[in-house]
This record gives sequence, structure tokens and C-alpha cells, in this order.
Amino acid sequence: MALIVQKYGGTSVSNVERINNVADRIISEYKKGNQMVIVVSAMGDSTDKLIDLMNQITSNPDPREADMLLTTGEQVSIALLSMAIQEKGYKAISLTGSQVRIETNDHHNHAEIMKIDNSRINKELAEGKIVVIAGFQGINSHNDFTTLGRGGSDTTAVALAASLKADRCEIYSDVDGIYTTDPRMVTEASKLDFISYEEMLELASLGAKVLHPRSVELAKFYNIKLYIASSFNNQPGTMVGGMDNMEKKRSVTGVTVDKEQVKVTVAKVPDQPGVAGKLFTKLADNNINVDMIIQNLQHNSKNDITFTLHTNDLNKGIKYIEEIAEELGAENVYIDEDVAKVSIVGAGMITTPGTAAKMFNILGENNINIQMISTADIKVSCLIEKKHADLAVKILHEGFELDKIKL
Amino acid sequence: MALIVQKYGGTSVSNVERINNVADRIISEYKKGNQMVIVVSAMGDSTDKLIDLMNQITSNPDPREADMLLTTGEQVSIALLSMAIQEKGYKAISLTGSQVRIETNDHHNHAEIMKIDNSRINKELAEGKIVVIAGFQGINSHNDFTTLGRGGSDTTAVALAASLKADRCEIYSDVDGIYTTDPRMVTEASKLDFISYEEMLELASLGAKVLHPRSVELAKFYNIKLYIASSFNNQPGTMVGGMDNMEKKRSVTGVTVDKEQVKVTVAKVPDQPGVAGKLFTKLADNNINVDMIIQNLQHNSKNDITFTLHTNDLNKGIKYIEEIAEELGAENVYIDEDVAKVSIVGAGMITTPGTAAKMFNILGENNINIQMISTADIKVSCLIEKKHADLAVKILHEGFELDKIKL
Repeated sequence: MALIVQKYGGTSVSNVERINNVADRIISEYKKGNQMVIVVSAMGDSTDKLIDLMNQITSNPDPREADMLLTTGEQVSIALLSMAIQEKGYKAISLTGSQVRIETNDHHNHAEIMKIDNSRINKELAEGKIVVIAGFQGINSHNDFTTLGRGGSDTTAVALAASLKADRCEIYSDVDGIYTTDPRMVTEASKLDFISYEEMLELASLGAKVLHPRSVELAKFYNIKLYIASSFNNQPGTMVGGMDNMEKKRSVTGVTVDKEQVKVTVAKVPDQPGVAGKLFTKLADNNINVDMIIQNLQHNSKNDITFTLHTNDLNKGIKYIEEIAEELGAENVYIDEDVAKVSIVGAGMITTPGTAAKMFNILGENNINIQMISTADIKVSCLIEKKHADLAVKILHEGFELDKIKL
Repeated sequence: MALIVQKYGGTSVSNVERINNVADRIISEYKKGNQMVIVVSAMGDSTDKLIDLMNQITSNPDPREADMLLTTGEQVSIALLSMAIQEKGYKAISLTGSQVRIETNDHHNHAEIMKIDNSRINKELAEGKIVVIAGFQGINSHNDFTTLGRGGSDTTAVALAASLKADRCEIYSDVDGIYTTDPRMVTEASKLDFISYEEMLELASLGAKVLHPRSVELAKFYNIKLYIASSFNNQPGTMVGGMDNMEKKRSVTGVTVDKEQVKVTVAKVPDQPGVAGKLFTKLADNNINVDMIIQNLQHNSKNDITFTLHTNDLNKGIKYIEEIAEELGAENVYIDEDVAKVSIVGAGMITTPGTAAKMFNILGENNINIQMISTADIKVSCLIEKKHADLAVKILHEGFELDKIKL
């Protein structure tokens, strides 16, 4: 008998038919003698509908009241899923975050889980019930409802798996696993049987919208293997786990592209100590995330500082950039929205010299000019012209033979 | 400074515009220096939508899970109303039944309030906040959410007013007060400034769908005056209170009609002791409410037992009626759906002899035959042919001069 935590995303429970399908999947594992703890998101677009109502009332909602509103979404789905399981003849009970006592800090809208009380869950499991828990939500020390923000339901599932010392943690959505690149762009993309936490973190933050980095971090910390699969079929998914058993096997695991980057150049800044610090502190203070950064000393002791940010941050950021540029005595600010960032990720590249060089060569051989480079332990990213983005992904995927990958 | 409990029904908060309107009304009382505790129902038809989803999953929902589902409706409206108040520049906070700790018994779907903890409400009031509380819901000793069933939000408001020792309890809906009869039937119907608990109870159970009898009972027990008015205008409403100051003033306060009655006659039952008891016990055991009852000893020691029940109960009831009729040796069962019950209600009739006689005379003078009569302390009801129902209400309203009523 194993204790299994399963999480089902909003698409998986978006209507009655899908809720019944999820109930069948849960029951089939329960019938094998397993104890089942289920985490569910809000149904389909129900959260969007609530947000729409909220936006009609205020553009600046009180975070506490927003959480009061949004926590109803998961409460609806846990009740309906529990009823669906009961209707099929099995015992089930739904619990909200407050009933479980998933204790969080006070940061409404992006709370962090501090502690989970297992007692109610264990009591219900001991009575043979399938326990259905609202994802994305908790309760703070004032007894007020909190939400965990982006990736919240995944985080709930991983935290529960850790707290309950579950044997398995399975994340079901409409995505059937982790691929070497976006299969919609490259038909040769292969599904990975296994990926390390570290690779998954780099892939997730680069845009593979499968699992929020936060839940991967948590899984890594508690060393909980996550199984990622689709709730719509029974095809094998991808296991996310520790790096040990695979680090020698492949240098590159995936290729990703991010087309929502803007390149900003603050040109000809007088070369003085602390210039870059001032610029990026100002942006950070205003919650603008900068991604790649390069600085070139030009002739005449003038610096060009070039960096990228997300297109969503451009409107907000440009004001601060121009202010600080003037303050620093820069001669010009250039904005280039016609860029994309293509990246290769792989735990093996740490021990495989030449991986980055190979990437640059593949791009060069295809006449794709590299504007910026950034490297991390298990990732190399290149900023290129946007029109080359799709081609770059395709040739890198081919060049690193990711269509033939198999653990 | 007064402590005011206001309750707003689902129609009053059915969309964003109406929520904003309610917020304005609350703020205008708050600005006068009053402490405001607000009870809200779920928005418009949102509960119906949840029930519809539930019915697609099961025809026999677990009562606990149904409460888990349905309590989300009020949680949405308290959050939105609090945001609307805040957006207008005033402090507000929403609380669910579980956060207040409105403690109920274990009867899911029709729980009864056992105790209310005032501490959280008092804390928030002391901080100058308008406190917005979810109606219709509470929490049981297992920390599970319960709902109060029909009339639940009114009951929440009255219970809170009692627990907090509020100075006023105001019930707002789309109805602007209590009338001497249905204004859609009799244009001369007058709105009452005042009505006693007892009269209100008789009127409510007779079909004036303004205030659930349960909340009136509770208000009567704790001697809390209820002010009934519309949230859509500022016209004066009706005060519901103790009988003292008005018992001598008018004999009849209102006329009501119930067209959803069926007359059942179990004919020629051998006259033995215990016959009626057996019949009505069987119906009661099967949850079928019987309203008017008469029994006539006929020739040959045979009894006709005639009674009325609600049309909704006929299908369920007829099986049991026929079973017991056979068992008792009755010769026939007759069903007459072509009936209506018209009633006059008034606390003053206790001290005004001849009120019932006057009713019979008015009906008789208009050639309306009375099939059954039942009398209570402050109510007289007559069963008549359905086609005469509207006329009967009109002539009784006129005959008792209810168009001229004024406290």
C-alpha cells in the first residue's frame, strides 16, 4: 500500500465529464490498495471569471479580499470531485486549505506554506476515504484565507507529499510530459522519461509552462520525485528527480525559446565605478526583472550597457531607464523588440566541455548572428534576431540529436 | 452611535452595479457614526448554477459536500461587497461563517445555529471596519462547513443581532415591506408600518415570501425588532416587533391566499377510535405535511375524513393515503385540486369577537361557498373553489377596510 498525492490542474476538471474522468482515474489507483490524497485546482476559467468580476469593482483590490474571493474556486472543484467519487461508490471527503490547516505566512496573493497539519488528513485516510484537498490556498495566523500565487496548486501537492511522506507525487494536467523542445515548433521533439530538478528549473523558467519553478524547488529540497503526465490519456509521462543517475548520459536535454524579450541599450555612459549598480538597482527597486546583461567598454572611456527584460515590463521600465540614463550622462537609449532568446539546457554540460561552443557553431553555420550570450551551470542562452527564432530551435534540437534522446 | 445589522438578499447583490449600490447604502449609515455588521446572500442565481452543476454529477449529493459547494456563493459576495466599500474609501473586512465561528449543529443543509463567537467581529468593529459576514452558513464541531437551509441568511442576521445585542436589525431585499395583501392582486393593498411577530408568522407561512418564519421566530424569542425594506429605493418599510402597542388597534392586518392546496377526502371510514391518528401518523412519518383537517360523522357510523396538503406532496402522498385507506376499510378516496385557501390574519381578532363570522358573511354575500374552515388564535382560513380565490381576497380586503389601514 502506497500513499499517493495526485494533483489535477484546472483544465483536467473544467467540466462535469472531465471531473468524472478524474474520479475514475483516482478510483483505479485506490482500488489497487493505495491511499489517495488529491489536490485540485479551480475549474477551467472559473478563476478568470472571478477576477473579471473583481476588476469591475476595483482596479486595486485589497489582497486579503482577493484571496477571500479566489479561494472559492478550488472549494467548488473539491466538492464536485468528492461527489463524483462518492457517486461511483467510493468514500471521499473534501477539505479546504483552512480545514487541513495549511499554514502560510501573511503574504496574501503570494503566500508561502510554513507548516501543514497532517492530523485531519490522516484521520480521513484511516477511515478509508479518498481525501480531496483544495490547491493554491492556505490560512494565516489570523485565520484569514491566503493564496499561494502562481504555481500554487503544484506547490500544495508537493508540500503535502513532503508533509505526509508520500510514496509518490503525480502532477496531472493537459500536458503529457516534458519534451526536449516545444513539439508544436519541432515535430521531432522527444518526450523525456526523466529530467533532473535542475534541468526542469531552467526549462520551466525559460517558458515550458508545465510545472512552476517554485514547486520544483520544493520537490528538490525534500527530494520528492514528481511524475508529470496527462489526465486525458494513459501515456507514460516524465519523472522529475535527483540528478545522480543520469548526469553522465547526456549533455543537453532541451532547447527552449523566449520571444517575449526586449533588448535595451543605454549607450555611451561615462565610465565611472558604480554606474551599472545604479541602473540595475533602480530597476530592481521598481520590480522590473532584468535577464541578460552585458557591458562593453568602448573607445573614449564610454560604456554601452545592454540588457534584456520581458516585453510586459517595457512600458513600466522605460520611464525609469530614461531617468537613470540622463542622470548617468548616457548619450542614448536604444530599444530593440525584434529579438528572441534561445537556450540549451542540460545537467551534463557541466562535465561536457565544448557544449556552448557547439551551440555557437550551429547558429553560426546557419548564418544566425548572436547578439548577446549568457551562461549558467546547466544553461547557455543566446539572444538572436526574432525572425531566426524558430529555425534556431530546430537546428539546435537536431544538432544536439535531441530527437534521438532516450534515457 | 448604534450597532446596526443589515442583511441584503441575493437580488440586492446580483451584479456589480447593485453591489455598489448596497455599498453606498451601508456607507451612508456608517458615516452617521454607526457600527455596521452586514450579512449578505449569494449573488442572484449563483446558488442555482452551483446546484445545477451538482445535479449533473449526482442526484443524491452527500449533504456535507453540498454544503462545501454552496458556501462558496456567499463567500464570493462578501469579498466583492467588501472590495466595493473599500474602493469607495472606507474600511471593510469580510468574514465567512467559519471565520466568525457561527457554530451550528451537525445537520448539514439545514443546520441550526448553536452559538456565535463575537470576538472577531468586535475586534474588527473596534478598528472602525464595516464587517461583512456570509449569511446562510456556519461551522460544526468537526470544523466542517454547514448551511442553514431555507431562510438561512435572514436567520444569520437575526442571530447576529441577538448575539451582538445590536440596536437595529434591517432586512433588505427587492420587497419594500409587508402589505395587507398581495399588491399584484389587489391594487388597494396598503403597506403596513408595523406588524407583530405573530401576524408575520401567519402571513409568512401563508405565502408572503418576505421573511422566513424561522427568522421571525428567532427575532420574537430575542425580542429583536426587524425592519423590512427594499434595497432599491428609500421608501419606508415595515417594522416587525412585539404585539403590545397595537393589539387594540386593528382586528385584521392582512389577507392571503394559497392556491397550491389539494383537498383529499377519505370517505366512509368505519367509525372506530384511532382511525384519524393512524392516517395522519402514516403521512407524518413520510414527511407529508397536512394543513386543514375536518372529520364528519356520517350516517351508518361512517366517517368522512377531509384534509388538505400542498400540491407538491400529492404525488408522494397519494400512495400512502390509498394504502392506509384500504387498511382502515374506507370506501373511497377523493382528490380535489380545484381549491384555494383564503385567510385573514390579525392579532386584534383575539379581542374582537365576530371577526370570523364577518369573514364567512362576506364570502357568503358574494356567493362563495366555504368547503372547510380552520381557525387559530390570530388567523381564520377558508377553503373555497379555486376560481373564486382572487375575488375572495379582493372582497375580504375591502370588507375589512385594509385599504384604509394605517398604524
